[in-house]
Amino acid sequence: MAIDIRPLAVSLGDPAGIGPEVVGKCWDHRDRFDLPPFVAIGDPRSLAAVWDGPIATIDDPVETDSAFDVGLPILPIGSLDGDIPGHPSVGGAHCSLDALELAVGLARSGSAAAVVTGPVSKQQLYAIGFSHPGQTEFVAERCGVSPGNVAMMLAGPSLRTVPVTTHVPLDRVSSMLSASLIETRGRAALRGLQRNFGIADPRLAVSGLNPHAGEGGALGREEIELIVPAIEALRAEGWRVTGPHPADTMFHTAARGQYDAALCMYHDQALIPLKALHFEDGVNITLGLPIIRTAPDHGTAFDIAGQDRADPRAMAAAIRMAAECANHRSAVVA
Amino acid sequence: MAIDIRPLAVSLGDPAGIGPEVVGKCWDHRDRFDLPPFVAIGDPRSLAAVWDGPIATIDDPVETDSAFDVGLPILPIGSLDGDIPGHPSVGGAHCSLDALELAVGLARSGSAAAVVTGPVSKQQLYAIGFSHPGQTEFVAERCGVSPGNVAMMLAGPSLRTVPVTTHVPLDRVSSMLSASLIETRGRAALRGLQRNFGIADPRLAVSGLNPHAGEGGALGREEIELIVPAIEALRAEGWRVTGPHPADTMFHTAARGQYDAALCMYHDQALIPLKALHFEDGVNITLGLPIIRTAPDHGTAFDIAGQDRADPRAMAAAIRMAAECANHRSAVVA
Repeated sequence: MAIDIRPLAVSLGDPAGIGPEVVGKCWDHRDRFDLPPFVAIGDPRSLAAVWDGPIATIDDPVETDSAFDVGLPILPIGSLDGDIPGHPSVGGAHCSLDALELAVGLARSGSAAAVVTGPVSKQQLYAIGFSHPGQTEFVAERCGVSPGNVAMMLAGPSLRTVPVTTHVPLDRVSSMLSASLIETRGRAALRGLQRNFGIADPRLAVSGLNPHAGEGGALGREEIELIVPAIEALRAEGWRVTGPHPADTMFHTAARGQYDAALCMYHDQALIPLKALHFEDGVNITLGLPIIRTAPDHGTAFDIAGQDRADPRAMAAAIRMAAECANHRSAVVA
Repeated sequence: MAIDIRPLAVSLGDPAGIGPEVVGKCWDHRDRFDLPPFVAIGDPRSLAAVWDGPIATIDDPVETDSAFDVGLPILPIGSLDGDIPGHPSVGGAHCSLDALELAVGLARSGSAAAVVTGPVSKQQLYAIGFSHPGQTEFVAERCGVSPGNVAMMLAGPSLRTVPVTTHVPLDRVSSMLSASLIETRGRAALRGLQRNFGIADPRLAVSGLNPHAGEGGALGREEIELIVPAIEALRAEGWRVTGPHPADTMFHTAARGQYDAALCMYHDQALIPLKALHFEDGVNITLGLPIIRTAPDHGTAFDIAGQDRADPRAMAAAIRMAAECANHRSAVVA
């Protein structure tokens, strides 16, 4: 595998959340976590407020490599408020958005190998006029990609899942599903496995929607009417796709060995097994973008911010996975 | 804890399925699996066809204890057909039903401490006029309990779940939920934890239905309108009940330590985490019955019957859990 030597851009997220703390801890344990050089992007004060390590303010990401040995490199973004851990503010929301924008810009321009995004507060962002459902859609727009063509993958050491639908009430899932949506998400998952994980001929396992995958129609017909046609369309393109599988028998150890990613019909179908198995180190990776973007699979956790209680393992996993994906992509290019 | 010295009655299930094989293997490994004396109920020929161990045919369950050291005790039920593993028949279906009926009768009369049911074929049973959805409802009726008042619990070493709804299409779950149904199932779960598991003051964690437990109504209102009222009603009775919890963050190791059982809104919400974590040794236990009934959480697996490939761990776990529940109940009585 080729090694991408460009630094990773890590936005700190909301300065009042646990983002600064977990990024600082990642630098502390960079050897144990096996992390390549990365540059933080955010307000240095939010980092200093919760972390005692050395901070190396830099002006250009090319300085990351040399600075990384002496301190955590940071490209500073000022926050209007001197943010207090656990107390989100309007200024902090602007700061988190500016940091995200800069991180994405660096990846778009090629100055950074990938973007890792710290947790933001959607409520705070909405309050300052942010009109995207979340960071994922914002990143997609900045990359010129329709949000409908990106897919969210949740990845842990032994499982990757991609939900077809995400933040919708359970009783609306069925009506939001279509064969073409399942097919689109499945194709994004398969291409993402090739591009980001270096799997030449990826295997996708598709779940059913209903108990026992509908049991031949007795427990629901979405499998017959929507899921099977989508699977057949993907197979016709030459992809290795199986299913629809009963969701409850897809996630035990032996079953997980049969596929590279599971395509799930709704949020909890994808997230329950992922978090049951990999709560501490689950990574969210956005598929379908020209750049690499990962994020730890947790939120701002304002309730524990500034108490030195935040677990950095998910952030470390997100940084490591971003680096691995960058290396896979440069291997493809080379 | 008191020890219930009565034998456990284990119905072999469909003679053409893997039931006979896994019960035979349980006797082989009775020491390793730490199993108390049990008596098989079914056709001895179905056992001999797939298992080389010694069979001790007995007439009365009181002989179980003395016979258990020399062979697998069996109360014989004849099958009209000489059943071939992997080839279910009408005669085999009758045999599996007769075995179930006898096992339940022994537990009802007090001759057996508990019933463990081997896997049956619902399709075969329906073909001979069986009018219950499954063994659970049959057992409930034989015990004079309305099927609406029993609850299915899935239990593994580190997790117990109880689904409020079971075999219904996903898009009908919301309309089948009501505060009173959630409350009834929750109460059955709590009482079951007391009676069968000896937990004096059990803790029940209730899941939400929607992603993020509805996020305050933004992603669905069932939490506000149905689940919270049910939780409050149970709390008013003095039970320790928490929730509604986002389903995806309920099942990691630390979260599981906070409750004795999780009440889930639908089949896969309960079964996905249980089988992801405990696929090999998940046990189905019916709560709300005057008798104890457990079952391995797998089916007849006709496709591998007679090939010496069936894994006996779930059956062993079901037998062991039945014994533990019997001991807890005799402790309560004593």
